[in-house]
Amino acid sequence: MYISETPITVRYAETDQMGVVYHANYLVWFELGRTTLISDLGFRYHEIEAQGVVAPVLDIQVSFKKPARYGDQITVKTWVEDYDGLRITYGYEVVNQNNEVCVTGSSVHVCVNKDTFRPIIIKRSYPEWHAAYEKVKRVK
Amino acid sequence: MYISETPITVRYAETDQMGVVYHANYLVWFELGRTTLISDLGFRYHEIEAQGVVAPVLDIQVSFKKPARYGDQITVKTWVEDYDGLRITYGYEVVNQNNEVCVTGSSVHVCVNKDTFRPIIIKRSYPEWHAAYEKVKRVK
Amino acid sequence: MYISETPITVRYAETDQMGVVYHANYLVWFELGRTTLISDLGFRYHEIEAQGVVAPVLDIQVSFKKPARYGDQITVKTWVEDYDGLRITYGYEVVNQNNEVCVTGSSVHVCVNKDTFRPIIIKRSYPEWHAAYEKVKRVK
Amino acid sequence: MYISETPITVRYAETDQMGVVYHANYLVWFELGRTTLISDLGFRYHEIEAQGVVAPVLDIQVSFKKPARYGDQITVKTWVEDYDGLRITYGYEVVNQNNEVCVTGSSVHVCVNKDTFRPIIIKRSYPEWHAAYEKVKRVK
Repeated sequence: MYISETPITVRYAETDQMGVVYHANYLVWFELGRTTLISDLGFRYHEIEAQGVVAPVLDIQVSFKKPARYGDQITVKTWVEDYDGLRITYGYEVVNQNNEVCVTGSSVHVCVNKDTFRPIIIKRSYPEWHAAYEKVKRVK
Repeated sequence: MYISETPITVRYAETDQMGVVYHANYLVWFELGRTTLISDLGFRYHEIEAQGVVAPVLDIQVSFKKPARYGDQITVKTWVEDYDGLRITYGYEVVNQNNEVCVTGSSVHVCVNKDTFRPIIIKRSYPEWHAAYEKVKRVK
Repeated sequence: MYISETPITVRYAETDQMGVVYHANYLVWFELGRTTLISDLGFRYHEIEAQGVVAPVLDIQVSFKKPARYGDQITVKTWVEDYDGLRITYGYEVVNQNNEVCVTGSSVHVCVNKDTFRPIIIKRSYPEWHAAYEKVKRVK
Repeated sequence: MYISETPITVRYAETDQMGVVYHANYLVWFELGRTTLISDLGFRYHEIEAQGVVAPVLDIQVSFKKPARYGDQITVKTWVEDYDGLRITYGYEVVNQNNEVCVTGSSVHVCVNKDTFRPIIIKRSYPEWHAAYEKVKRVK
């Protein structure tokens, strides 16, 4: 299993008046994690999209362990938790500079046609991506 | 079970280049749903917070069914899915003007002291809130 | 001169750890103000966009007088400060429930073709909008 | 005059359905630019804040030249445009990977006490910061 690492500097805009990172922002960080992982696999998400393919989220699950704060140096660890040729499940772990786990999560995606939102079977339509995902996915 | 309804007009800022509402924004809408529900129960979240109590999210789960779009008139339905005197689980259903379900979800919260982030047992410390939550929670 | 009024409930997500509304969010509120104004004039921004026309911001200026806070009931007042058949300048005043001015600002827009981003002369291409803007713009 | 450079990868969440970066996000990028500049001067904004000092925006002005897009590699250039011992004016230029100017802007700040929001005369209270700002500010 391959785990990508994305460094993130907490933005002031990402904090709320509780004095911590507002919880919805972790979903944005997950997205940055996916972009790094896809890039590490040799692809670029914005080039995929230029071909008319987008990968919306079907399901997302997040567990909040310890709030990230302004000034923290965050790392988002991202991996392919599951993949069946159609659906991709990413796993995430967000840690701070002391290697404390702030957040864990997972998200399920399918590739769809940008205009019709109809699903694309990756295995059939994009054998290169399929091979890459098969190679790095978590073995169970 | 009581279900609150929060009307939401999609903001341009909430869309992304997929032409739909960016998925993290539904978490913000859930928050607006909770605020309405709490207000319908006779409390005001910002007054609770002024007393030194905040209610961070422990866990969140979201299923994306149909994208909301700019121009849509959205309603967030919110209810107390579960409550045990300490933890509150809210349930959510986001529908559009055609009553199509865009998103469903749930989130688990505890009340904590604003400064120490130590949990507060609602049942013991805030009997009025406890009574209100007991009254409206989903019967199983 | 016509002034539209847009009521806004401050969202928790819009606050930052300074305990006030994060300054970039006022630009989002300005956008909501423009949408109300355009709607009051009898048009719908998302329908205009469906015709292939968008109205990006060219210039924006904001003065911050008094921070808006969570719990505040905000009103965004919006008017057409200037209009010459091509460029529209909107004026804004953001007030709280005590009618205290939080923020003032202005923004300059042109209509452009959605695909080419080439400017559209409203006076020539959309005489109905032109008439409406002429009617409500601030007389100097 | 010293100019700091902050590299920024456009986030999907920062785009809107116009297919470009939503305009309010440039204010967030300006904030990242200020953080880098302050860091380059030998200070850390979150440490300043821990001492009870925050630096809210009084005025901001932005000119939008060319939209930034997802996939772009952005650089925010930031400098001290003006400084008088109390007020700081930052200047900004946002360029893309082809060195095309996307956005220019400026913002005026004062340091205030975090709790009272009363202004702090930097020259008097923080001679070290004062010296640093004097050293790097634009000579006119």
